[in-house]
Amino acid sequence: MPLGEFDLIERYFRRAPRRRDVLLGVGDDAALLAVPPGRALVAATDTLVEGRHFLPGAPPRSIGHQALAVNLSDLAAMGAEPAWALLSLSLPEPDERWLAEFADGFFALADTHGVELVGGDTVRGPLVVTVEVLGFVDAARALKRSGARPGDVLHVSGSLGDSAAGLATLLRSGAAGESDDPLVQRHFFAEPRLALGQALAGIATSAMDVSDGLLGDLHKLCMASGVGATLELDALPLSEALLSGHPSQECENFALHGGDDYELLFTLPADCPVPGESGAGGLPRLTRIGRITAGCGVRCTRGGAEVTISGTGYDHFR
Amino acid sequence: MPLGEFDLIERYFRRAPRRRDVLLGVGDDAALLAVPPGRALVAATDTLVEGRHFLPGAPPRSIGHQALAVNLSDLAAMGAEPAWALLSLSLPEPDERWLAEFADGFFALADTHGVELVGGDTVRGPLVVTVEVLGFVDAARALKRSGARPGDVLHVSGSLGDSAAGLATLLRSGAAGESDDPLVQRHFFAEPRLALGQALAGIATSAMDVSDGLLGDLHKLCMASGVGATLELDALPLSEALLSGHPSQECENFALHGGDDYELLFTLPADCPVPGESGAGGLPRLTRIGRITAGCGVRCTRGGAEVTISGTGYDHFR
Repeated sequence: MPLGEFDLIERYFRRAPRRRDVLLGVGDDAALLAVPPGRALVAATDTLVEGRHFLPGAPPRSIGHQALAVNLSDLAAMGAEPAWALLSLSLPEPDERWLAEFADGFFALADTHGVELVGGDTVRGPLVVTVEVLGFVDAARALKRSGARPGDVLHVSGSLGDSAAGLATLLRSGAAGESDDPLVQRHFFAEPRLALGQALAGIATSAMDVSDGLLGDLHKLCMASGVGATLELDALPLSEALLSGHPSQECENFALHGGDDYELLFTLPADCPVPGESGAGGLPRLTRIGRITAGCGVRCTRGGAEVTISGTGYDHFR
Repeated sequence: MPLGEFDLIERYFRRAPRRRDVLLGVGDDAALLAVPPGRALVAATDTLVEGRHFLPGAPPRSIGHQALAVNLSDLAAMGAEPAWALLSLSLPEPDERWLAEFADGFFALADTHGVELVGGDTVRGPLVVTVEVLGFVDAARALKRSGARPGDVLHVSGSLGDSAAGLATLLRSGAAGESDDPLVQRHFFAEPRLALGQALAGIATSAMDVSDGLLGDLHKLCMASGVGATLELDALPLSEALLSGHPSQECENFALHGGDDYELLFTLPADCPVPGESGAGGLPRLTRIGRITAGCGVRCTRGGAEVTISGTGYDHFR
């Protein structure tokens, strides 16, 4: 017998309360939440559509992970601490195995970061997943896109291009399922950089997460700050897994135009020590990839000489 | 030339700031918001899918209105004051006329209730609209589903069944577009009962909005409160427009099983004055429709005698 909407919510998404600041969670008309005194609320939402943000047949665990991760990455980019999530799930049919695995992926990541699911909606329709995350930050320390100044040094966390290369592998193979390939794993289960974002709060002059490709996202950061930037292509951090499987020009393309690695792009004053550079705090590797300049536009250099790069970040409507 | 995602957001959804508690609105990775000290945050989300929650070809203004209204209705049911909204829009193609009209409907309702759009996401995909609303309430005065006690009197606001009858009219006519029919207008542009919800906060023992049909929703309220109820079918508030166009049995069916009138169902202690009954405050008509009982289950009576009603509320997966 098919499960009804209310049974589905009950079975897969209602769990014992985890946070004392949830005054009322899943099951009423809305959630009641206690924001800590003196802290600003941070709110973000992102939608994943089957066939556009994930492949048809993608492992449900990876979809549950991604739907939350892409939102947590937005909070990381603000320097915020996540607290609560809401989940809207449009599903063609209530497939219990799919739901159980989706919930596994969602809650595994939620538990890692102390996030409680406090509400949502389950409807019948095309496979579309929308998550909203809520968290806190000290308003004066929040990371924005708009604070970069000429002379600031441009950094990025971790490695770029892995997720896009993993997606390319899946597309080539025609199989969207589980895989041991580390690039495919990165595509399915990229980790949002929450600890790094919190370490940068009050220190970085600007930040954003790389979700639509480094080049396009850097352009957006520059526009928001009213500055330009020089990007050193030789400095792009590329993983061993990426370099060992792809020619170097392809690696650069993945790094410049690929999305969904959930790395943070941020700027620091030139004289500012780099957080975590001493190896403390379990923060990801950080790489200096360029500098903020006066004026506007992004100049790319290779071996010290300016080069022209075509292509832009991913835009769903172009 | 088609508009890109970022142009779309810029053109139709970014407006001048309206609320001083929005520290950072549309355009960064997340919104930064100031919750008033001492108040609880209230959060709700609902998704509308084309062909399920609205008809293909429905006026875009009505979809913009409904997507926000269904969420504001959830906040009304908590006794909350709305403040902010996030909008996730999955669209098959960036039709500018559609977007302009959708935005008109959304912002007309947002402005009526002082709600500011602070973030969102625009993606390409099937037509699916998800809105999240955030607001405030004094936690001790929040309306929950769980507080009804035996002896409480059951009330409902306004009139029931109009929206469902309007939908039936559209389905019969095969046209989903604009219409002067007041029932169709109610279907397209039902008003959430925010002022009533706020007037009931701290007074009603329980409340919820009627979104899936009175009978099913009353059942949920009783389950949440661990009580039963007697529902007097003769007392159901039916509008002149409904009564004049439909036989009385059909009216009762619309009232019991139809959704999306956004009326509030609530309980008051037997000796409690009914808010707004003196006509003050521009509150909607309130009607006493039954009583909370010990035990469980909903008993329906007509002319004082118990009757059996078949059918339940709307469930997307049944």
